[in-house]
Amino acid sequence: MSLNSFGHLFRFTTWGESHGSAIGAVVDGCPPGLAISEAQIQPFLDARRPGQSRFTTQRQEPDQVRILSGVFEGKTTGTPISLMIENVDQRSKDYGDVAKAYRPGHADYAYDAKYGFRDYRGGGRSSARETASRVAAGAVARLVIPEVKILAWVSEIGGDRIDMDHFDADEIGRNPFFCPDSWAAARWEKLVDDARKSGSSLGAVVECVATGVPAGWGAPLYAKLDAELAHAMMGINAVKGVEIGDGFEAARNTGEGNADPMRPGSGAPEFLANHAGGIAGGISTGQPVTVRVAFKPTSSILTPMPTITREGEATELFTKGRHDPCVGIRGVPVVEAMMALVLADQKLLHRGQVG
Amino acid sequence: MSLNSFGHLFRFTTWGESHGSAIGAVVDGCPPGLAISEAQIQPFLDARRPGQSRFTTQRQEPDQVRILSGVFEGKTTGTPISLMIENVDQRSKDYGDVAKAYRPGHADYAYDAKYGFRDYRGGGRSSARETASRVAAGAVARLVIPEVKILAWVSEIGGDRIDMDHFDADEIGRNPFFCPDSWAAARWEKLVDDARKSGSSLGAVVECVATGVPAGWGAPLYAKLDAELAHAMMGINAVKGVEIGDGFEAARNTGEGNADPMRPGSGAPEFLANHAGGIAGGISTGQPVTVRVAFKPTSSILTPMPTITREGEATELFTKGRHDPCVGIRGVPVVEAMMALVLADQKLLHRGQVG
Amino acid sequence: MSLNSFGHLFRFTTWGESHGSAIGAVVDGCPPGLAISEAQIQPFLDARRPGQSRFTTQRQEPDQVRILSGVFEGKTTGTPISLMIENVDQRSKDYGDVAKAYRPGHADYAYDAKYGFRDYRGGGRSSARETASRVAAGAVARLVIPEVKILAWVSEIGGDRIDMDHFDADEIGRNPFFCPDSWAAARWEKLVDDARKSGSSLGAVVECVATGVPAGWGAPLYAKLDAELAHAMMGINAVKGVEIGDGFEAARNTGEGNADPMRPGSGAPEFLANHAGGIAGGISTGQPVTVRVAFKPTSSILTPMPTITREGEATELFTKGRHDPCVGIRGVPVVEAMMALVLADQKLLHRGQVG
Amino acid sequence: MSLNSFGHLFRFTTWGESHGSAIGAVVDGCPPGLAISEAQIQPFLDARRPGQSRFTTQRQEPDQVRILSGVFEGKTTGTPISLMIENVDQRSKDYGDVAKAYRPGHADYAYDAKYGFRDYRGGGRSSARETASRVAAGAVARLVIPEVKILAWVSEIGGDRIDMDHFDADEIGRNPFFCPDSWAAARWEKLVDDARKSGSSLGAVVECVATGVPAGWGAPLYAKLDAELAHAMMGINAVKGVEIGDGFEAARNTGEGNADPMRPGSGAPEFLANHAGGIAGGISTGQPVTVRVAFKPTSSILTPMPTITREGEATELFTKGRHDPCVGIRGVPVVEAMMALVLADQKLLHRGQVG
Repeated sequence: MSLNSFGHLFRFTTWGESHGSAIGAVVDGCPPGLAISEAQIQPFLDARRPGQSRFTTQRQEPDQVRILSGVFEGKTTGTPISLMIENVDQRSKDYGDVAKAYRPGHADYAYDAKYGFRDYRGGGRSSARETASRVAAGAVARLVIPEVKILAWVSEIGGDRIDMDHFDADEIGRNPFFCPDSWAAARWEKLVDDARKSGSSLGAVVECVATGVPAGWGAPLYAKLDAELAHAMMGINAVKGVEIGDGFEAARNTGEGNADPMRPGSGAPEFLANHAGGIAGGISTGQPVTVRVAFKPTSSILTPMPTITREGEATELFTKGRHDPCVGIRGVPVVEAMMALVLADQKLLHRGQVG
Repeated sequence: MSLNSFGHLFRFTTWGESHGSAIGAVVDGCPPGLAISEAQIQPFLDARRPGQSRFTTQRQEPDQVRILSGVFEGKTTGTPISLMIENVDQRSKDYGDVAKAYRPGHADYAYDAKYGFRDYRGGGRSSARETASRVAAGAVARLVIPEVKILAWVSEIGGDRIDMDHFDADEIGRNPFFCPDSWAAARWEKLVDDARKSGSSLGAVVECVATGVPAGWGAPLYAKLDAELAHAMMGINAVKGVEIGDGFEAARNTGEGNADPMRPGSGAPEFLANHAGGIAGGISTGQPVTVRVAFKPTSSILTPMPTITREGEATELFTKGRHDPCVGIRGVPVVEAMMALVLADQKLLHRGQVG
Repeated sequence: MSLNSFGHLFRFTTWGESHGSAIGAVVDGCPPGLAISEAQIQPFLDARRPGQSRFTTQRQEPDQVRILSGVFEGKTTGTPISLMIENVDQRSKDYGDVAKAYRPGHADYAYDAKYGFRDYRGGGRSSARETASRVAAGAVARLVIPEVKILAWVSEIGGDRIDMDHFDADEIGRNPFFCPDSWAAARWEKLVDDARKSGSSLGAVVECVATGVPAGWGAPLYAKLDAELAHAMMGINAVKGVEIGDGFEAARNTGEGNADPMRPGSGAPEFLANHAGGIAGGISTGQPVTVRVAFKPTSSILTPMPTITREGEATELFTKGRHDPCVGIRGVPVVEAMMALVLADQKLLHRGQVG
Repeated sequence: MSLNSFGHLFRFTTWGESHGSAIGAVVDGCPPGLAISEAQIQPFLDARRPGQSRFTTQRQEPDQVRILSGVFEGKTTGTPISLMIENVDQRSKDYGDVAKAYRPGHADYAYDAKYGFRDYRGGGRSSARETASRVAAGAVARLVIPEVKILAWVSEIGGDRIDMDHFDADEIGRNPFFCPDSWAAARWEKLVDDARKSGSSLGAVVECVATGVPAGWGAPLYAKLDAELAHAMMGINAVKGVEIGDGFEAARNTGEGNADPMRPGSGAPEFLANHAGGIAGGISTGQPVTVRVAFKPTSSILTPMPTITREGEATELFTKGRHDPCVGIRGVPVVEAMMALVLADQKLLHRGQVG
């Protein structure tokens, strides 16, 4: 019941704060004998890394991962894999304002209410920097599920959606928005730039699809695949909504319209639709597993907002530091990582449960 | 890691199938000394009970709960509370069709893929009947959080939303839809009746608000209050989406528009908005905790749908049994129960963590 | 983290008090497709059942087990198996003394200190009656590990040990002491009878061997097979000591004397000794897994003992009820059950971890 | 269910191998606001540190602990505390023998049977070096239970016991054996020296007492304080037996002889004996909590022993490396650490359960 851990059989624990000396994850339960190296993990961290375009925070972090344990002669041993990422660019700055008052929309007040205490430097433990640990752990999880292909992208920024007719998976890696629609990417460039220049911020929707998940992963009733995904995604910083398959659209549909009929296929049955997002009764059906995740706009903005000090006095606060104008963009590698982590865990669970 | 359990310190385990002799829940971790009786639990089960109007399944179940342990002289003892509900109306019927073929949209195929085996009578363990156990457990959870008031309602059926200007909490108990808007309730009567008569079904959205939650419940990072709620709600049968606060609307907002500014209040700070739904950084802020939950339309419909048999042959199937034309309606007491269960657990966790 | 649950993947939760209406267990994580019936579970309960000889408590309980869920057409479905045993002989008696004062050696004072509250009827939740639930769950666990043979016996009562030269496994079922040495059984008859008549009680040692456990079950470091066994056994009522293999004797040995050398065998290696009790580094070696468990003498005796009332006044108390003169005797089926439960869990864990 | 984690609310996860670059622990669930520094943890590591006398392994490790997270301005923040200890003296040596064949008594064969794979350098994850992580975590646990005083010592080496009439707590820190009896310490000097010189090894018994534990910690039934202690102690490398209170002696006693009568005291009741070791029904009674732990003799000895190679060929093996002639000696700080870790966890659990 470690509250900084996630997963059942494939389980990881993260530690570290935004402005401490390092952050990291301990991955426990990874099966033995899998080929692994730091070079395999690094690309996923690089994808999430800040400072790569003007559309993300300018904090410069090399985010070099080190494997400290659990690997011998290039293979996992079955023992815990300790991953560490040093914090480099903890820019020396004046935290006076943030130390004294609570930033609206941030976890400042809630942490203080809980602990009577908080590490106010860059958000401390509540910083999105923690997600680097998840991405590193997710890279290990991918080794466990080579049969699965995971792809995520931004489908919407500030209410401007991509056109699925323009969807091109290859496009995702070509623009700074993880956007599969080059037309939308062009529009977003101006949109995000405007937000950045005016010190505002924008929300975004990230979609993720996992193909190759065999039928039968997941478990009734309190480790349902969809419930575990909802937990995983809602636990990412700034996430406020999660949908599986058609999500809220299903609530507006009829039984006929929402059906996923089947017909005989070669080997597995062929489904004629996938409104359910690849999950029925909490168990995978063999169809692509699809998730949509809503990221709120970054709470750090230049517009001063009314707030209170620790002593309860009225004041105003705006953000001086380096921040993401649209934190959802860098959410893409994190959503992929959480998908991998949930699926790796469910694969091992299924193996243990059913053999 | 019991997969039929939920919660950390306040934890419940459910058992039972739709057409077995009984269903039940074991509630573990309930603090000692709380006054409790079967009469306190029963009203919550009655609210969920089927067969009370023509808008829900006609299965007749008295759903009488029995307390088998954990209570002495009318008070909880701190030991497990075993709750049992006997199944009465397991109508004898011909399950031949369902036994041989997979009902589209149901968990039939997924269960069979997982276990190589399924209890096909009424959905077995995947039946919504299991939610009665959650409602009973939720009634116990409410005893742990007397400071919290939980209210849920249906805000949308088949795409027809209530008008918040018509919102009247007292109205919720006066119509068969848990609808706080009497105009909407009147419209839904026809809407659901039409669906019922034509053998179709409709989706719905349920909203839930918990007031009185003090600031400080929840935990970074993998037992975040919002993540736990997302897990709890997405684990309810037929749920496909969960939103905290503004949810997906937040993804379309700006940082300014989405801010929840604060000013000094009497005792706790006063918030000028609640886009966040009462949770920041996974920890409660003292504002109302708000959740929206999307229920898909019942998969059981009269229209025959293509499917396959266990042997992989093409066939068609439609539902002969008694079913809910809009399963989301009876989701209201279940959503309330899950809210109570999560909050009771978080209260105990907070107490243990911080003292 | 359910505190009334045990196990990771094969997990059970027990509920119920000595003098409530029933007790039971929910077994979660049992693989699907195993043939099961109440008739298979009953013999294990019968072995533990009180009132079968004058050497155990005269409480008469039929201990009929009912399976309420998780089984369909005679096979496990993979969903929770709810087992219930009704309490029949809750003899109506005056609990006045026990309600007012704490029985020395019992959990009375500790429970009251913890909960400010206790169910004083027959010990409530702390009664050895709870072990019937374990025995029922253990019978299910045995289905998961058909390759393993588990045998336990009493090796010592009141300091009088069996002679291993007289060991005859068939003898265990022939006397009321689960004693494999007919000479010792004869001696114990008088020993236990004397204790019973004088209202005294005796401690005992139970030994248990599991053969057929393949090499490789268990896990470093905090789910070591030996640590899990120690937890399981020390959690049985009245147990005060646990040894694996040579146990405390190993502490008096030398490295040479304690070695378990190997030589090539047919298939698995052949070990030349088994000081380690079949476990090295927390993982099974393929040798028999051996455990020794110390049961203290029953605390319920006829000799009045000084104690205090709830109000802190000095008083004396002795036991009026029906009690076991040597509670260790009926510990034999419980020790076997816990061995089965740990091994079933470890088998599933191993399958999940390594595949 | 992380298998490299221990504890419920106060929980730690360890990682690292004997000959990797570092080892460490992540402590999760430590309450906020506790004063902490590396200097407070270091003395406990120093007590366990090898190479301090000729009676322990000559491996030279400074065992300097670093705190990487969870601390701000000298106080715990409530977030995970990452502790790291670099491995310095991983002496470059030829592991050829150990790589090819299994050392009898070691985990080599069991690990290989489980994982099909092992890190053979110095035992890898199964090395007693992992216990340094426990000691570091235990030092943090002590901060949570300032009301408790924990003291452990060696009471027996190679069958030679201390005389309790000579018991002097101050003596424990004055000799290299953690021996409270200076006469015994003198005898052990020769005993252990002889074993060391002849390449043999000796077993030992460690005793531990925790005073100041209030009545009420612990929980029925599967997180009993004694069961948790048994799990914690049996999980230490080389441990083969655990006793609470009188342990196996209780099995040879009568109900009268084993009773712990009570009489009114000032505040808490006064107990006239402590056969139970401070625990009844799994819950602390307020008396000292006492545990005895049996350590087997180190398996690494100079005498060649028959064994087999990975390929199943017969061979002989003896230990060339640096090893402890009596591993139980250095077990003392580890036993103390595990006691602290269990008690800290139980304190937080109790607070959450009962308030």
